[in-house]
Amino acid sequence: MAAMGIRMSDLDLPPIYCPFESAVHPRVRQIEKRAVEWIGDSGMCATQREKAWVVATHSTDFFARFAPAAEDDRLLTAALWVYWGFAFDDARCDRGPLSSRPAQFNALAGQVQRACETDSAVSGDRYATALRDIMRRLRSRTPPTQVSRFVHAHRAWLSGVAWQVGNQALGHMPGLDDFLAMRLLAAGGEPAFALLEPATGVQVPDREMHRPAVRALTEMAICVAALDNDRHSLRKELTRDRADQNIYTVLMQERSIGVQEAVEVANGLRDRVLLRFQQLHDRVRPTASTELAAYLQGLRYGIRGNNEWGLRVPRYLSAGRWPDEMDDTLVTYADEPSDVRPGPVEGAPAVAWWWDAALA
Amino acid sequence: MAAMGIRMSDLDLPPIYCPFESAVHPRVRQIEKRAVEWIGDSGMCATQREKAWVVATHSTDFFARFAPAAEDDRLLTAALWVYWGFAFDDARCDRGPLSSRPAQFNALAGQVQRACETDSAVSGDRYATALRDIMRRLRSRTPPTQVSRFVHAHRAWLSGVAWQVGNQALGHMPGLDDFLAMRLLAAGGEPAFALLEPATGVQVPDREMHRPAVRALTEMAICVAALDNDRHSLRKELTRDRADQNIYTVLMQERSIGVQEAVEVANGLRDRVLLRFQQLHDRVRPTASTELAAYLQGLRYGIRGNNEWGLRVPRYLSAGRWPDEMDDTLVTYADEPSDVRPGPVEGAPAVAWWWDAALA
Repeated sequence: MAAMGIRMSDLDLPPIYCPFESAVHPRVRQIEKRAVEWIGDSGMCATQREKAWVVATHSTDFFARFAPAAEDDRLLTAALWVYWGFAFDDARCDRGPLSSRPAQFNALAGQVQRACETDSAVSGDRYATALRDIMRRLRSRTPPTQVSRFVHAHRAWLSGVAWQVGNQALGHMPGLDDFLAMRLLAAGGEPAFALLEPATGVQVPDREMHRPAVRALTEMAICVAALDNDRHSLRKELTRDRADQNIYTVLMQERSIGVQEAVEVANGLRDRVLLRFQQLHDRVRPTASTELAAYLQGLRYGIRGNNEWGLRVPRYLSAGRWPDEMDDTLVTYADEPSDVRPGPVEGAPAVAWWWDAALA
Repeated sequence: MAAMGIRMSDLDLPPIYCPFESAVHPRVRQIEKRAVEWIGDSGMCATQREKAWVVATHSTDFFARFAPAAEDDRLLTAALWVYWGFAFDDARCDRGPLSSRPAQFNALAGQVQRACETDSAVSGDRYATALRDIMRRLRSRTPPTQVSRFVHAHRAWLSGVAWQVGNQALGHMPGLDDFLAMRLLAAGGEPAFALLEPATGVQVPDREMHRPAVRALTEMAICVAALDNDRHSLRKELTRDRADQNIYTVLMQERSIGVQEAVEVANGLRDRVLLRFQQLHDRVRPTASTELAAYLQGLRYGIRGNNEWGLRVPRYLSAGRWPDEMDDTLVTYADEPSDVRPGPVEGAPAVAWWWDAALA
């Protein structure tokens, strides 16, 4: 795959349109302290530098924005999984020796998923061991239905990473349609949003959670957050030798356009998904149960929080060997969406159903 | 991987212990006729010989034993998926060019799974197109919660196949623990048993379906059926050049034993899982709702039906280029289990939780 061949300073990155309320848990610092302690004790980091980068994901800040009113212990557990997910992603998925070895990755994913499902599973992998501890915490406070939802979301995530690792191994840059289907999974949004119920203690009834409209809203929230993450990490991607699979490299290849044009197309596409999310949300919300309403609010908090976090986190901003401090400047957002065209986005049938009139 | 190096005629294959009621849907022949018509129209078979082998899976007979009292149209839809699953397995998973190409398989699995999830997805693969038709039929008669359960089961299956394909690519024969975790997924038991609800129209409440004891019963039913399938196909495996990953090759390698001893060890292990299934079943059943009771009966029908079918189906018995007729001789079963030792089976921590005292 070709590198992107442009410097950050040449790029005009428009601000993000994100008309949702921003909130953060009031005890985020205290909970972060406990999380950092856990990371040190967990055994999942091989070196101090690895630990520093895991801590610098500021995953407590991340999830404290998804669930600003959670009980401390519940938020801690959710945050621990997010740290774990980033650590695993960096060491085993996006980077590291398995990032282009699908056969080995598939086996590890199978073992890790089993460690997510059952405490009796044993794996030599240090990440699998740490995950078992997180799952013990999760199960102790979460009803089986919500645990199952998380477990399914966890497998969905790993299946998307496996797809990405396979493409990487083949040097294959997917087209837009495949990329969106893959990125919806590989971005980790499935497990992140499936942590809303365990974190808040809310239990959305099955008949509501599995409604196609609610499923569409979840997928759209994941899509917006994933595309926003591609934007957050664009700066870092530009410094790398090889081009990763992201919305920009995908559009550049599929449409034979430059990165500046890809930024504009991606921004428009993302805004169209966000607008459909808002529209469908506003139709579903009035008849939602209290529990579903809380979940939908979590999706909105998540989309916004992902930006508040992603636009400042050293994970995406620090280019050195060691992470810098978290940036604390205020984020500026766009006042208007960049593209308001209705209807399914072109060239992406895998997600066209989000615009089905029958949904609402 | 070493071939198994022994002829079928040298092997003493003990009868299977299976103390569950046998039943079959009374209109299995009429429904099979409709299924065969669908297979012809579906476009998923490239040649007449491929079609003959798909028909010869006798998937209607298979699922007519899982759900002997289903409405015709519901049974038809479930049977269509089983035909489809076998066809996909033969062409894309267990055999065929992708069977040792994990990168390509991961991408195909992602596309196929998306076709399972949404009708708007487009894929050039003829199997993905046929699957979309089956899913339209399924969704038209099945509530969203049950569709979601099937969709998750479908992903679980593909993730197991991806693991198997990866091992195949590496020439890696897994140990018993990994094999069981993988086989639980790759055998296709997850989607097969997840078709019980759509086929019978029964809706098991979430709080029961996700109870750890019910989950353990489902996994044990899958495990028994998967190990039974390894036995059903042993004859065919012995004629192949390369040794597949099955319970016999796994035990032979892990314990440095011959195939005859592996047959005995596998039989004992399988019987111990079956006995725990019976024990836990008998503890869960008395307090089960009508819906859960119907589901549990479906698990028992499935275990038995899988044997009634698998011991006679040309898929496992026919060695020629074209399939023979279905064998209609009566199956002989063992009167007693071959191993009655309680407790988790040794060397398989990934499934040890089935014996947790806390389950019931």
